[in-house]
Amino acid sequence: MDEIAADPSHPRYQSLLLRHRLEEAEKKGMLAGSAMIAHGRGEAYDYLLGEQTIPSALHATKEALTALKGASHPVLSLNGNVVALAGKEMLQLAAVLECPVEINIFYRTPERMEALLSHLEAIRSSEGIDVKILGAKPNAKIPGLEGPRANCTKEGILDSDVIMVPLEDGDRCEALVSMGKTVIVIDLNPLSRSAKMGNITIVDELTRVVTNMLELLSQPTHDNGGLAYDNEAVLTDALRHISTKFGTPEV
Amino acid sequence: MDEIAADPSHPRYQSLLLRHRLEEAEKKGMLAGSAMIAHGRGEAYDYLLGEQTIPSALHATKEALTALKGASHPVLSLNGNVVALAGKEMLQLAAVLECPVEINIFYRTPERMEALLSHLEAIRSSEGIDVKILGAKPNAKIPGLEGPRANCTKEGILDSDVIMVPLEDGDRCEALVSMGKTVIVIDLNPLSRSAKMGNITIVDELTRVVTNMLELLSQPTHDNGGLAYDNEAVLTDALRHISTKFGTPEV
Repeated sequence: MDEIAADPSHPRYQSLLLRHRLEEAEKKGMLAGSAMIAHGRGEAYDYLLGEQTIPSALHATKEALTALKGASHPVLSLNGNVVALAGKEMLQLAAVLECPVEINIFYRTPERMEALLSHLEAIRSSEGIDVKILGAKPNAKIPGLEGPRANCTKEGILDSDVIMVPLEDGDRCEALVSMGKTVIVIDLNPLSRSAKMGNITIVDELTRVVTNMLELLSQPTHDNGGLAYDNEAVLTDALRHISTKFGTPEV
Repeated sequence: MDEIAADPSHPRYQSLLLRHRLEEAEKKGMLAGSAMIAHGRGEAYDYLLGEQTIPSALHATKEALTALKGASHPVLSLNGNVVALAGKEMLQLAAVLECPVEINIFYRTPERMEALLSHLEAIRSSEGIDVKILGAKPNAKIPGLEGPRANCTKEGILDSDVIMVPLEDGDRCEALVSMGKTVIVIDLNPLSRSAKMGNITIVDELTRVVTNMLELLSQPTHDNGGLAYDNEAVLTDALRHISTKFGTPEV
């Protein structure tokens, strides 16, 4: 880890910490070849958002929690970058929500699955978190997808009614929406296909979202107080924030 | 290389080709740990620009060529990502401009320098390009920088009057400007420190810039026809392009 990343007061601490987690995950074989590039794209969008949770993102986060808590079969879908960046926090969230997590990766190889599973299982055991980790033995397919990327488990993704898919590919997001599920997307690019496809789209950085969710769940109420939810309005608001950044050039 | 990247008519061909070049360079040890993340940030900004050379960027490109051609000691500074993405084209450009290139990397290790030098030398010899490749034996320092990142050569960067630094770190860009050089920056983020520091900032994707430069140099005239050059106006125009992308949400 870079020397400046060891100091939490450094203005780039959080960003450097996330990079460090990805570098460690890469060494363990947890990531796809495109993982670092995808993370860089996210960094650029987060910079444009001001590296903050904007109010509309918090509104979407609350809506997502309401959906997850009201679900019959909620599930949190985890890919390589999600496990690397927020594996522990996702397990903690699943524990509070009393739902399983499922490892579901786009570029599926036995080696990557094994690396991700053992990383998560090590966290689960060292932190004493009681959560079911699905995905090792897929026994179902997501309709409309081809090849190994369609693989999932019946008791997890297939039978879920509400699914949270952070940093998800557009095709898979679309396939899940087509199955009639309530799909919660976490994506920093409000113009991405996943962002536009999702039923509830949180335009925010993953670790901030999970931290916010855990914080909200520890409070007596965390819902939107009956305020109507409009995902298009949430996306438009995120776009407005970004264009404001560019509308006031610092040059 | 991904199957779709083998087909030049594929809409993502250019983007996938660049990723492929980076992946190959990574295998050869040419890149810094942060190289892929930096490329991803560039991808995000290029998406916002519409993956095109906007007119103000072409204006800046012409101004850059005028400066390079009018220089007494021009030099093209190359880092790991630049060599990986456009090593051949940068050598071709240096040949036309009759100037040296200098490998100048932020995270300097003997192994990376060796990997970059041998990659460039292989291109120079297989393509028969007559260009001096500097950087192997630094004999000077850039004032204001510390450690190995200050290293440069006297006959290249130190004595240059016009220097092109694609994808450059903000501190180094600032140090070069402080030396009184005319600094040409290529950067997709118009709000980056390098973009704001440069005397001539081309907000465009590296391989498009070099292709444009080679094309312009093959024409009888390539300058701005006496039009005044205003780098702040160029940056503001790039910002306007990006905010237009966000101002017309596709949601």
